[in-house]
Amino acid sequence: MKSPLVSALRISRRAALVLAVALLGACAQMAPVTDPLPSWNDGAAKETIVQFVRKTTDSSSPQFVPAAQRVATFDQDGTLWVEQPMYAQVDFALDRVKDVVKAQPALATEEPFKAVVMGDRAAMAKFTEADLLKLVGASQAGLSIEAFREVVKTWAATAKHPKFQRPYTELVYAPMVEALKYLRANGYRTYIATGGGQEFVRAFAEAVYGVPPEHVIGSLLKVDYAVRDGVPTLTNAPALFFINDKANKPVGINMMIGQRPQAAFGNSDGDQQMLEWTTAGTGARLGMLVLHDDAQREYAYGPATGLPASRIGTFTQPVYDEAKKKGWIVISIKNDWKRVFAFE
Amino acid sequence: MKSPLVSALRISRRAALVLAVALLGACAQMAPVTDPLPSWNDGAAKETIVQFVRKTTDSSSPQFVPAAQRVATFDQDGTLWVEQPMYAQVDFALDRVKDVVKAQPALATEEPFKAVVMGDRAAMAKFTEADLLKLVGASQAGLSIEAFREVVKTWAATAKHPKFQRPYTELVYAPMVEALKYLRANGYRTYIATGGGQEFVRAFAEAVYGVPPEHVIGSLLKVDYAVRDGVPTLTNAPALFFINDKANKPVGINMMIGQRPQAAFGNSDGDQQMLEWTTAGTGARLGMLVLHDDAQREYAYGPATGLPASRIGTFTQPVYDEAKKKGWIVISIKNDWKRVFAFE
Repeated sequence: MKSPLVSALRISRRAALVLAVALLGACAQMAPVTDPLPSWNDGAAKETIVQFVRKTTDSSSPQFVPAAQRVATFDQDGTLWVEQPMYAQVDFALDRVKDVVKAQPALATEEPFKAVVMGDRAAMAKFTEADLLKLVGASQAGLSIEAFREVVKTWAATAKHPKFQRPYTELVYAPMVEALKYLRANGYRTYIATGGGQEFVRAFAEAVYGVPPEHVIGSLLKVDYAVRDGVPTLTNAPALFFINDKANKPVGINMMIGQRPQAAFGNSDGDQQMLEWTTAGTGARLGMLVLHDDAQREYAYGPATGLPASRIGTFTQPVYDEAKKKGWIVISIKNDWKRVFAFE
Repeated sequence: MKSPLVSALRISRRAALVLAVALLGACAQMAPVTDPLPSWNDGAAKETIVQFVRKTTDSSSPQFVPAAQRVATFDQDGTLWVEQPMYAQVDFALDRVKDVVKAQPALATEEPFKAVVMGDRAAMAKFTEADLLKLVGASQAGLSIEAFREVVKTWAATAKHPKFQRPYTELVYAPMVEALKYLRANGYRTYIATGGGQEFVRAFAEAVYGVPPEHVIGSLLKVDYAVRDGVPTLTNAPALFFINDKANKPVGINMMIGQRPQAAFGNSDGDQQMLEWTTAGTGARLGMLVLHDDAQREYAYGPATGLPASRIGTFTQPVYDEAKKKGWIVISIKNDWKRVFAFE
C-alpha cells in the first residue's frame, strides 16, 4: 500500500525508494559535524578559530576568502612541538658532532665542537646563538639533501626528549595538529614558517603534520648543485643563506608563497613580524600566540605574571602587550588545551 | 505505454526517468576525451607528453606516480613565451629607466642608465649581462612587493612587442599553455622555474598561465621587511639575492618545492641542469627542450643546422647533443606546433 505522501506526489514505490536513498545521502552530508577541535577546551581561543574558519569559507559571508587566498602559516618550535629545554635541531646537531668530527678531525680542537666532544657542560651552557648556528650548520654541511633527510629521519626515530623520554616527533601539540587539519579540511594551505632548518623540518613534516615539503619554509644553508660521480646532486654547503626568523619571516613567506597569509600562529618574539604583517591585511585575519604556562603538562615560560623568561622561545612583555593591543589571541596551554599531547 | 525494457525491469516510468538522468550523467563522464593538445601536430613530441601523463597517472601502470610527487617545472622565457629580440623583463626595465632616474637623478650620469636616457643605441647594443642585471634590479628596487606587481601589470597591459605589435602576455605559446593545463588536469602541480624575476612573473602568471604565485620560482632581489608609516611593508632592496639559472635552477626548485620534478621543460643552456637533475630521477621522467626553428611564425635561433646562435636564449650544440644522448625530446616549433600563438 502506498503512503498518502507517495500517492499525493503520484510517484511509484520504487521511485520513492530512489528518492529516499538520495535524501539519505543528502542527510548524511548534513549530519551534525563532529567537533573538529576536540583537544581544545571551550573558550575564546577555540571559538575564535572556529568563527574565523566559518566566516572566511561561507560564500555568503562578507569576510569570505576565495580558496586561492586561503593560506595559514605556523611557526614550529614552541608552536607545533616542544622547544624546551633546547630546540630539537640543536639536540640533533649535538648528537651529530661525533660524526661531524670524524669527517673533519680538525674540528675536534675548535670551539664549539671541542666543548661538545669533551662533554664540557660548563662551556656548553655558555654557548651563544652563533655557537649553536655553527653546530647546526656543521650537522648538515657536506651532506646531500637526500642523505641529510635520511640522517634526520633516523635520528627522529631513535632520539628521546630528556624530560618526556619519547621521540621528539611525538611531542607535537595535539590541539595544533587538529587546527592544521581543520584549516586544511576547509581549503586552507597550511605552511610551516620556522626559524629552524627547512631541510631538517621537511624530513618529518609530512608524516607528523601532514605538511608536504613544498609547504615548509625555513632557514637555509647555501646549496650547491653538481654532477658527482655521474650523479646530479644537491649538496648543503657550509654557509648560511637565509635565516627565516623575526623580520625575515614575512620575507621567507613572500618568497615561498607570494601572498600574505590570512592566519598566522606563533609563540615567541621571532613570530612578531609574521603576525604583524598577516593581521595588517584587509578582511578577516587571525593571529595567535601560544603561551607556555603549564609547568605540569609541558613547560612554563614567557611574559605573563610569574612565568620565567627563557632564552629558548623568548616571548617578552612588549610582544605580549602588542598581542593584546592588536587582538591577537594568546593561547594558554593551561586553560585552552584539554590535552597537550596525543599520547596523554 | 511502457517500453518492453522498462516493463521487464518492473520499474515505473518515473523511476526509469530518474535512472535515465543518472545514466546520462555517467555517460557524459565517459564521453570520448577531446584532444587535450590541439595546437600540437601529431608526432613524437605530442605522443611523448600524452604517454608520459598516461603511464604516470594510471594506477595500474608500473610507472605510476602518486599525486604528491606529480611536479612539473617550466622555464619561462623562450619556453612559455617569446624571448626575442630581448627578454620581456629587460624591455620592461628599459621602459622603467625614466621613472628610475626621476627617483634617483644621480643615476642619469651613470652607465648603463645614461646610455638608455640618451637613447645611445650603439652603447646599448654592447650592454653586458651585468648591465642588464643593473637595469632590471633598478626597475624593482625601492618599490614594495605590491607596488612593483602593479607597475608590472600596468606595463604588461600597455607595452607592445616590437615585431608582433601585441602585448607580451599574448605572446605565450598556445601548445605550452595546453601542456600546462593537461598536466594540471592530471594532478600535476605546474611550477614556473625562470631565470627572470620571481615578482615580475608573479604579476601575470596566474592570469596568463593559471600558475599561482606560490608556483613561481625565479631570481630574487633581497627583500626588506619594515613597518613604514604604520604599514608593514616588504620592499625590494637594491641587491641581488639569488639567480635562478643554470646550476641554480635545481637549487631554486628544491628550495621552493623540496622534491625533484617528474618533468621539466626548457629551451636553452640555462635549463640544462634542471633537465639533467629531473631526468636522473627514478621511474618515468620527462625532459623537453623547445627549439626555435620557425623564422616564419616566430624566430629561428639555436644549435640545429643552419640556425644562427643567439645571446638571448642560448642553446648550444653540446646541450643539443646531450639532449639527444639522454632522451630529452627537442620540440621543433616548425614541425611540432600546429599553431604557435592563440591569436593565429
